[in-house]
Amino acid sequence: MATGSSGSSQSPSARRPRPEVSVLRVGHRPGRDPRLTTHVALAARAFGARRMYLHPRDDALAERIAVVTHRWGGDFAVVPVDDWKSLVRTFPGTVVHLTMYGLPLEKSLPRLARLRRILLVVGGAKVPPELYRRANFNVAVGHQPHSEVAAVAVTLERLLGLPLPARPGEAPQRIVPSARGKRIVGGRRRR
Amino acid sequence: MATGSSGSSQSPSARRPRPEVSVLRVGHRPGRDPRLTTHVALAARAFGARRMYLHPRDDALAERIAVVTHRWGGDFAVVPVDDWKSLVRTFPGTVVHLTMYGLPLEKSLPRLARLRRILLVVGGAKVPPELYRRANFNVAVGHQPHSEVAAVAVTLERLLGLPLPARPGEAPQRIVPSARGKRIVGGRRRR
Repeated sequence: MATGSSGSSQSPSARRPRPEVSVLRVGHRPGRDPRLTTHVALAARAFGARRMYLHPRDDALAERIAVVTHRWGGDFAVVPVDDWKSLVRTFPGTVVHLTMYGLPLEKSLPRLARLRRILLVVGGAKVPPELYRRANFNVAVGHQPHSEVAAVAVTLERLLGLPLPARPGEAPQRIVPSARGKRIVGGRRRR
Repeated sequence: MATGSSGSSQSPSARRPRPEVSVLRVGHRPGRDPRLTTHVALAARAFGARRMYLHPRDDALAERIAVVTHRWGGDFAVVPVDDWKSLVRTFPGTVVHLTMYGLPLEKSLPRLARLRRILLVVGGAKVPPELYRRANFNVAVGHQPHSEVAAVAVTLERLLGLPLPARPGEAPQRIVPSARGKRIVGGRRRR
């Protein structure tokens, strides 16, 4: 199957081998509203990342994403990490830290697109300075304050292309694109 | 000045006149964690939207975004709307509803790029069916569940290009892109 691991097919314009991308989300705050990290995970999945490492762990959030993946296809998962610095040090690939202070994504893209395996790190204002040194690349998706959700989505979209709808048989439930209204095939509309 | 209204310059590849884009965010829930709507607003601003209409109104949120705009440049603002359906009906431009049930963004882009003025509507699961009929276009940024933050950012990025850093004099405070660490010019680092 030519669809990567998220269940979302990719733009046919992406002909060369695409990097395998994992996301590492640090600075999650369990106990506060989990929607922001949930949106990072959903965007990572929808735009073709293979998994999202999450520090600190949040099993309820991981379970909610697993339900989405079960229903909408692919094998994306949220993986807890207790020691994210160790993951950054030992990751068998290239560590790309998304930060508004980094070098422009537009300039970095040609190099990133040739990589085999990428760990895309998003943190927030509180990221320790060490990460800037440990990362192979510090990359800015624009140089204005915005959102880790937007940074992950735009980077993945530029690297991997816009996801296409799932094809018949590819996911338990899939959308049929429509000019008006909602068409879902194969799934329950309600839980 | 060739930078649009957000204070973020746009990719030089976008040579033709670009649409003026406003965002309408419905389904905001004041009293719950405001970060998600804050991120929609920050992404709208950073990726070149002119303003974000917000229903229901949230003055504290609008004020926080005003502080960001004051510091980082441009004249983006969050505008409260009490009757969003009326705004959708009377908007002097094209209403584009972002929904995973819509037609693929990739296919819609050539038409959208030729428009003069766009109202980009993001809602969430609870959007009334009426919006699907009222919108001139229902457009999907991928056909998987993800995030209104991601949908706004990716649509704006595809329409207007990646924002460039502000130029000297363009904003009270601006970033100098760096391979390592943080460089800010002209601003206070702390409040």
